[in-house]
Amino acid sequence: MPHIALDPELPGIRGAMAFRPETAKPLNELVEVLLRGPSTLTPGERELIATYVSHLNDCYYCQTCHGAVAAAHFNGDEDLVQRVKADFQHAAVSDKLKTLLVIAAKVQKGGKNVTPEDVANARKHGATDLEIHDAVLISAAFCMYNRYVDGLGTTQPRDEAVYRERGKVIARDGYVAISKTYLPETTAAR
Amino acid sequence: MPHIALDPELPGIRGAMAFRPETAKPLNELVEVLLRGPSTLTPGERELIATYVSHLNDCYYCQTCHGAVAAAHFNGDEDLVQRVKADFQHAAVSDKLKTLLVIAAKVQKGGKNVTPEDVANARKHGATDLEIHDAVLISAAFCMYNRYVDGLGTTQPRDEAVYRERGKVIARDGYVAISKTYLPETTAAR
Repeated sequence: MPHIALDPELPGIRGAMAFRPETAKPLNELVEVLLRGPSTLTPGERELIATYVSHLNDCYYCQTCHGAVAAAHFNGDEDLVQRVKADFQHAAVSDKLKTLLVIAAKVQKGGKNVTPEDVANARKHGATDLEIHDAVLISAAFCMYNRYVDGLGTTQPRDEAVYRERGKVIARDGYVAISKTYLPETTAAR
Repeated sequence: MPHIALDPELPGIRGAMAFRPETAKPLNELVEVLLRGPSTLTPGERELIATYVSHLNDCYYCQTCHGAVAAAHFNGDEDLVQRVKADFQHAAVSDKLKTLLVIAAKVQKGGKNVTPEDVANARKHGATDLEIHDAVLISAAFCMYNRYVDGLGTTQPRDEAVYRERGKVIARDGYVAISKTYLPETTAAR
């Protein structure tokens, strides 16, 4: 049961965002530009970073939701997502993405864990400064979203088919667009 | 030295934001609404939560910057800020704020650490659902900002007088306003 009075019809971050639309707006805009905005990393690659960090933070809702979006971007390849979570060094992703996942995992533990060697290794495999920046910020941002979702004790349904269908819609339409289907304009009187 | 090519004239999160104005926009809007938007928690109380979480995450730049903003909101009382960081249970803040700092500290370690008892205790001391929500999200958000600042290896000057002066300006004008003094409109060609 959620720690505060969230709409029981809205699981995970959706209930939290509907409760506080003023903060939902920048939260949605951030995830939209980070995971779907113009970038030399594909949306699928960025969703894999988000999924992996959410897995490290043990957030069921976020890893399942973003894992479904990632799979949708990779033609429904759910095995790829599971492989990245379990052992990304042996997953069918580029060497560049592997070096960015290493950096993301360091950031998840704390920003100071990133070493010049981690960054040099990413560059050696073709990562640009912008890609390194975005890997750091995606990891940092999901350390926020995961804590937000779990820290409020949101409801997190265990039916993966629901996430699969929603993942397809998000992969097609994006976060800001889908948020308009459930977010009120302003916080109701509480 | 920063891990990527950040402007050496812009310390901490300012260099990171100037590097990537597309993500800086929602990052600034989030901190503005969370720490300065309409709320029954004062801006000073919210800055104390941000400072405390940044202290727990050992982020020098964020704890010093937001500590200076908090002090500015409390008529320059820097001792109060130090006391909150060292031992908030014996600091001169309300019992309600202490219960919210307990929740923020749990979220810093991971969202699942928050218990129904923590939330009941906050309510017993007068905290509303919105205040509990905001304490959770402020803590989660600073787990992001701290990782962003440290994960990129940003420069973090040790001259506290610089933070003190900037803290006064932020307390007066806010985050979105001050960001306009150093943020470019779009990402430069890189």
